[in-house]
Amino acid sequence: MNILVTLNSNYIPPLKIMLKSMFINNPKVTFTVYLMHSSITDHEIDDLKSYIEMHKSKLEVLFINEDDFTDAPAHSYYTKEMYYRLLAYKFLPEDIDRVLYLDPDILVINSLEALYNLNIDDYLFAAAFHDIPGTDTINKVRFYPYELKEYYNSGVLLMNLENQRNKIKENEIFKFVEEYFNILIFPDQDVLNALYSQDILTLDEKIYNYDVRFYSLYKISSKDEWDMTKVIYNTVILHFCGKNKPWRRDYKGNFHSLYKYYEKLTFNKFSE
Amino acid sequence: MNILVTLNSNYIPPLKIMLKSMFINNPKVTFTVYLMHSSITDHEIDDLKSYIEMHKSKLEVLFINEDDFTDAPAHSYYTKEMYYRLLAYKFLPEDIDRVLYLDPDILVINSLEALYNLNIDDYLFAAAFHDIPGTDTINKVRFYPYELKEYYNSGVLLMNLENQRNKIKENEIFKFVEEYFNILIFPDQDVLNALYSQDILTLDEKIYNYDVRFYSLYKISSKDEWDMTKVIYNTVILHFCGKNKPWRRDYKGNFHSLYKYYEKLTFNKFSE
Repeated sequence: MNILVTLNSNYIPPLKIMLKSMFINNPKVTFTVYLMHSSITDHEIDDLKSYIEMHKSKLEVLFINEDDFTDAPAHSYYTKEMYYRLLAYKFLPEDIDRVLYLDPDILVINSLEALYNLNIDDYLFAAAFHDIPGTDTINKVRFYPYELKEYYNSGVLLMNLENQRNKIKENEIFKFVEEYFNILIFPDQDVLNALYSQDILTLDEKIYNYDVRFYSLYKISSKDEWDMTKVIYNTVILHFCGKNKPWRRDYKGNFHSLYKYYEKLTFNKFSE
Repeated sequence: MNILVTLNSNYIPPLKIMLKSMFINNPKVTFTVYLMHSSITDHEIDDLKSYIEMHKSKLEVLFINEDDFTDAPAHSYYTKEMYYRLLAYKFLPEDIDRVLYLDPDILVINSLEALYNLNIDDYLFAAAFHDIPGTDTINKVRFYPYELKEYYNSGVLLMNLENQRNKIKENEIFKFVEEYFNILIFPDQDVLNALYSQDILTLDEKIYNYDVRFYSLYKISSKDEWDMTKVIYNTVILHFCGKNKPWRRDYKGNFHSLYKYYEKLTFNKFSE
């Protein structure tokens, strides 16, 4: 199974926790983790490599240097990392046809098989949107005249690389950023939605991109009564969205204890 | 390591979850689980036996029948189960000198070694009390003229069986219940405290009998800032005290997700 991550050094500890949860809950799968980056040190790469190999999977590094994205808008105050997940198809090996991009602020708590094997023949991506009253409308208005189907979250993206190679145009993305850069909030997510919203297969957010901030909302508003039992047995991806992260001291949330449990499994050899 | 549990059929599912967490977090220990009961069916015993053996430990059954405790106060509306943990020393094999009693509404999230090997030469029990403002005083007054050192919680009890065989008198317990039965609230815990409070080695509740209802209180009131990180890395026993239990639908609490995670590991073969 091909996994894509893009991050800087600060996110290596949560990345390891995310990977640990993924390995534990997908014991029969061998993963190839593609790490797209421009600033992680050799020492950190070596450490990550042996960590991943210890779990019977492998790491492939896609180093992005200064010369890549030379046509990207130069005046933007966003770093070029914003283009990584959208243009990953250019850097990934030609012979792979799909990859699952995952943010590092995630726990994978059940099997990824069903997601990974989804039929996305007619799409560029599969993704979920967070159906939170109000925000959807705001985002649709923000990018008028682009017709946003929904405002998708870019933290979990199943990618059809073959279709992307044919349809995604680097310059179209750069042009969009040029034009809209002063209203961009989440730059890569905004581009994804404005340009490709129509080509995204919608995933059930409660299963594949569960925003942990909305536990109570999911529980009362969903017909399935998506309570803690449903989450633990059925949700595949818990996404710790928002500014406060579960590895920070002042974090509070319904999945804090579970996150810390996986953190301990990751960093405390004695507990395995 | 010798573990004692006493329960009826209703508590078999949480018992399995408790045992699962104990096995997982003590991978190098072989356990002998003593089950003291009067009503669990043969079928349930067989199932529990194979569950425990699957985890490379063993089950020993101590069946209590009608004729045991014939001298116990007959008019009491408490069942004779209330005496099980206090008089377990009479039913456990003569050649074992210590046992750790655990309630089934518990998760064992770290190693039990340090607790199990405590020096309790001069005590009957090791136990923790919940230092919640107010309740301690109430309980001390309730059992005047008995001098309660503290009001210990009887959900986690490390027992010195040799000392118990010499010092605990069945009839003294029955006499106490006879006299106080109309003010007993938690019958076995009340007896434990009234009669043996002076002979209990105090354990740190935050480590060995962490009452999950008091997460915020532990966090703000302890000098060690006993936050989620401290709990997950250092607390050994999480105790889901109180009426609402984490296996009930309407449960809410800081450790709900972690409990459900262990529940899934226990009952869902695919996730192991």
